[in-house]
Amino acid sequence: MSSIFSYSNRDFKFILKEWLPIEEIFAYPKFSDYYSKDDLDMLLDQVLKMAVEVVAPTADVCEEFGVKFEEGKVTVAPVFRELFKYIQENGWGTSNIDETAEGIMPEVVLMSIMEMIQAANPAQLSSVGLTTGAARLIQNFGDQKLKDMFLPKMFDGTWSGTMCLTEATAGSDVGDILSKAYPTDDPRIYKIKGSKQFITCGDGDFADNIIHLYLARCEGASSGTRGISLFVVPKYWVNEDGTLEDNDVVTTAIEHKMGLHGQPTAALAMGDENNCRGWLLGDPPDETGKAQGMAQMFVMMNEERQGTGMMATCVAANAYWNAKNYCKERVQGRLMSNPKGGRTEIIYHDDVKRMLMLNKATLEACRAMLHKCYYYLDIKHNDPDPARQKMANDRIEVLTPIAKAYPSDEAWGLVSESIQAHGGYGFCEDYPVAQAARDVKIYSIWEGTNFIQAQDLVGRKWTMGKGQVFADFLKDIDDFLAAKKGSCPELEKEFANLEKAIASYREIMATMGGYMAGGQMSFFQVYARRILTATGQLYGGYCLLDQALIAKKRMDELGADHYDYNFYYGKFLSAKYYLRNVVPNVWATLELVKDGDTSVGDAPVEIFEY
Amino acid sequence: MSSIFSYSNRDFKFILKEWLPIEEIFAYPKFSDYYSKDDLDMLLDQVLKMAVEVVAPTADVCEEFGVKFEEGKVTVAPVFRELFKYIQENGWGTSNIDETAEGIMPEVVLMSIMEMIQAANPAQLSSVGLTTGAARLIQNFGDQKLKDMFLPKMFDGTWSGTMCLTEATAGSDVGDILSKAYPTDDPRIYKIKGSKQFITCGDGDFADNIIHLYLARCEGASSGTRGISLFVVPKYWVNEDGTLEDNDVVTTAIEHKMGLHGQPTAALAMGDENNCRGWLLGDPPDETGKAQGMAQMFVMMNEERQGTGMMATCVAANAYWNAKNYCKERVQGRLMSNPKGGRTEIIYHDDVKRMLMLNKATLEACRAMLHKCYYYLDIKHNDPDPARQKMANDRIEVLTPIAKAYPSDEAWGLVSESIQAHGGYGFCEDYPVAQAARDVKIYSIWEGTNFIQAQDLVGRKWTMGKGQVFADFLKDIDDFLAAKKGSCPELEKEFANLEKAIASYREIMATMGGYMAGGQMSFFQVYARRILTATGQLYGGYCLLDQALIAKKRMDELGADHYDYNFYYGKFLSAKYYLRNVVPNVWATLELVKDGDTSVGDAPVEIFEY
Repeated sequence: MSSIFSYSNRDFKFILKEWLPIEEIFAYPKFSDYYSKDDLDMLLDQVLKMAVEVVAPTADVCEEFGVKFEEGKVTVAPVFRELFKYIQENGWGTSNIDETAEGIMPEVVLMSIMEMIQAANPAQLSSVGLTTGAARLIQNFGDQKLKDMFLPKMFDGTWSGTMCLTEATAGSDVGDILSKAYPTDDPRIYKIKGSKQFITCGDGDFADNIIHLYLARCEGASSGTRGISLFVVPKYWVNEDGTLEDNDVVTTAIEHKMGLHGQPTAALAMGDENNCRGWLLGDPPDETGKAQGMAQMFVMMNEERQGTGMMATCVAANAYWNAKNYCKERVQGRLMSNPKGGRTEIIYHDDVKRMLMLNKATLEACRAMLHKCYYYLDIKHNDPDPARQKMANDRIEVLTPIAKAYPSDEAWGLVSESIQAHGGYGFCEDYPVAQAARDVKIYSIWEGTNFIQAQDLVGRKWTMGKGQVFADFLKDIDDFLAAKKGSCPELEKEFANLEKAIASYREIMATMGGYMAGGQMSFFQVYARRILTATGQLYGGYCLLDQALIAKKRMDELGADHYDYNFYYGKFLSAKYYLRNVVPNVWATLELVKDGDTSVGDAPVEIFEY
Repeated sequence: MSSIFSYSNRDFKFILKEWLPIEEIFAYPKFSDYYSKDDLDMLLDQVLKMAVEVVAPTADVCEEFGVKFEEGKVTVAPVFRELFKYIQENGWGTSNIDETAEGIMPEVVLMSIMEMIQAANPAQLSSVGLTTGAARLIQNFGDQKLKDMFLPKMFDGTWSGTMCLTEATAGSDVGDILSKAYPTDDPRIYKIKGSKQFITCGDGDFADNIIHLYLARCEGASSGTRGISLFVVPKYWVNEDGTLEDNDVVTTAIEHKMGLHGQPTAALAMGDENNCRGWLLGDPPDETGKAQGMAQMFVMMNEERQGTGMMATCVAANAYWNAKNYCKERVQGRLMSNPKGGRTEIIYHDDVKRMLMLNKATLEACRAMLHKCYYYLDIKHNDPDPARQKMANDRIEVLTPIAKAYPSDEAWGLVSESIQAHGGYGFCEDYPVAQAARDVKIYSIWEGTNFIQAQDLVGRKWTMGKGQVFADFLKDIDDFLAAKKGSCPELEKEFANLEKAIASYREIMATMGGYMAGGQMSFFQVYARRILTATGQLYGGYCLLDQALIAKKRMDELGADHYDYNFYYGKFLSAKYYLRNVVPNVWATLELVKDGDTSVGDAPVEIFEY
């Protein structure tokens, strides 16, 4: 096992300082006294240094220690706890959401920071992300008492948090959970009974208490998602005097996973002794049985979905830069242009360059759409203008499933190419790419499988606000084309491809609309995931082409001898590669959708016996 | 860790009894007294039973035991040795190549058998495949003395074999190996000095001796592949009286791999004490320094390449059938067609069916092209007509890189879908799909990386015999279209797609020809792997459509109530799915090739720093 951290922060600097209009964000009152564009380089350099020096050395330790589950106790590597404390205490984690604090960072800046830290130890950092998500729910929906009771210790790394949705018999269909909540004398406190599964960081000695944000159904509430409520169920109950006592939360298993070995994934049983209590967030179910839990949980869920896209991106990016390092050193073969010459480092072979370029371009597209998402989050949370808040929220609604699923789908193939670039060494755990493959697979599954994301995109986001929300999302691309097409002769073909892609995409939508109107519902599931991929490619192409215009301008200003020229040239080439080798899949997808092959829908399930 | 074996032999029965003209093969004198079509069902059932009862129970044991390397000794699970002995002694393995034996099986039949056995314990079975490859080299190129010395014990499971090509500094460019051979008083015996790496089954206590087929350069021979000779270097030297003595072959490391944990992969040092001897196969280098080793090794290499495609196919197929089993049991959600109804097994969801169908169709395409390859091997080895021998050899030349690389490239994505179908359980080692992903990655790398295969296809096989060999290969598809197009109205669109695919493929060839003629050599590497994939899709589409015609006929004969109807309907739907959802990538690839994007070729390697 060998987790080697290799990362560049140059693309973050470009995104924050040159691409996104960060001044807008920094101008909001919450940030204006604390941040300016000029500080960004220093901040990003400091974080990269921390990732290298503090975080990365813990990765192998966590992977090798794994998770021990003995006599009901879950033990993680001691550095897991130290790192959790370090990140939280030093303000790189959960405390950034503290509404009462001064000097908190914009989400879009934190996104850059978290990508670097996460990349340095992917198994560990989810503990921070989940604590942030849990704390945000308490902050948004808890009363002052709950906030006072839980938040300070969740901000400073004393306690951690989880999200408890999945049960053994209910995963994607969370509405079918069996966990129950029974009222007590205190209307805010319920007795909880149930069991949960696949709870990331669900137990472990890295925090003194684990605060579970727990979905359960109050007696008498509606069936399905409509009747689910959200509870704060701490592992140890917090008494009024701050002392802790057992809360009948028992870990029944720790999963033996393919990757992320340092991270505890727990199965939990709540209330087997009838002694588990939880605080209800918000109101009890109303007289129709409707409860608030799912809507509340979605605040956390969307955040975790965007975070998942980032995690997939950073694991693949670290594998990509490791492949690059290997290919710079490894000598093999001769150049096709000079077959009689000496042996060459393999990075000069065009098939190797192609693998690196596919990674670079795709990962930059993922990073761009993720940052765009977080940029809109800052607008949503801070802009005084309700219209701009709505605009930002609309974009987030559309971007969330794409930003979760596109990176986590692509990462599998990208890491495969990074392994391939290592030759036989890629299959050996001495190099980090094998671990990257083992680690990265979960991201297409957790926080809603990528089919759930595709269903959300095609089923819900396409039609949200009678289709206006999605129309506005596409209009950003139309506006870009109208404003910029023809402005850069070197990117003429790339603009043409983006234009063809958006036209094709609209035809995909129209074709699917026709199928649905005609009752051909099977096509919804048959095409949803492929359409999500095409959506990611369309939006990724738009982002990269937008970036390429800036890059081209800088190239012309700086000239080829400037030390930074190759960064901009690389951005320009990423866009070219992506628009001409990846984006054409949008119209290939249209062709498949229009074809309307019914082989899947027609298939009796018995054929899969063979 | 949980290796669950789940396999069907129905497709093999179809391939051997209904698709390929197996009568031709069985009519060859070597087989005519021993085999008939009527025996095939019993044989295939017997092997599947053996795979279930004998082989599969060893898989977890091997995976969990792993490989121990202590005080220079390599230990594998005791069942590894028992299984090696069992397969070899019972005639399912190496002895089938024995030219002197009666009743050996056609290669194409053995292919079916090996796919099942291999699937049941992928880590173990390479020991058999490599022994077969090594024994075949001795049989083909050794004198009677060597045959007598080595073959009987390699046939009966006493000794095993390896292929020793790769060195720490020479993998893909085998011409740069450093291993040396020095003459001794006996002209057939050389002193060997060198070290090898990534030697599969290179050491271990599963065999009493390990016979390395070893590439080294005789003093004074040419540089590059031209000057390489092939030696038989046993771990223990075999004295005239049959006793064994140390041959200065030392294992220096055992690789810690991502998958195939039960299989020893060794680094070896030969002759550190100047005491390692090897038997030269064939003649010493001629006066121009030209040696015979590479040409000899390619006999084994081609066989291992075809075998690698089979291994990738069987690992992915086992994952597919496990996914099917899981999806039949797992209850989640409701049908879109009946959203208010009860919960359903997820195999009824069309997104799940799509994942299974993609697996089924692609794996059947892989299996078809692999069997075609072995069918041609039988013709090559047995047909009395030199013209038919040449025809068969030509097809094998073209099919080998495709049959190695296409399945091993696709397997990664297919296994990913089988994981995805398992939801969160797919990331847990309790289900076998996580292990399938870990195991399957090597197949795109070993026996020549898939880029090496693509280079072989586009650089060598396209132009072999002034292009006639490849033209003949394509003509098989033309002939099929000419004979069968219009014969089945239900497959009209599928025929049209195959016709469009072959036209597109020819345009890919013409476009690449133009680039090469114009000196745009970069495009060779930039497009080679994508072209290989398109070649696999074209040929896979041809095979499946050919099969679908038979299946449709059987459907019509049997009627929907027949117990076997769904098998044939499944074959028909596989072809539909593949021709309409996979084969269109051939013309998508043409579009990319014609575009001629130069971003990869233009890229200075410095851009990958970011």
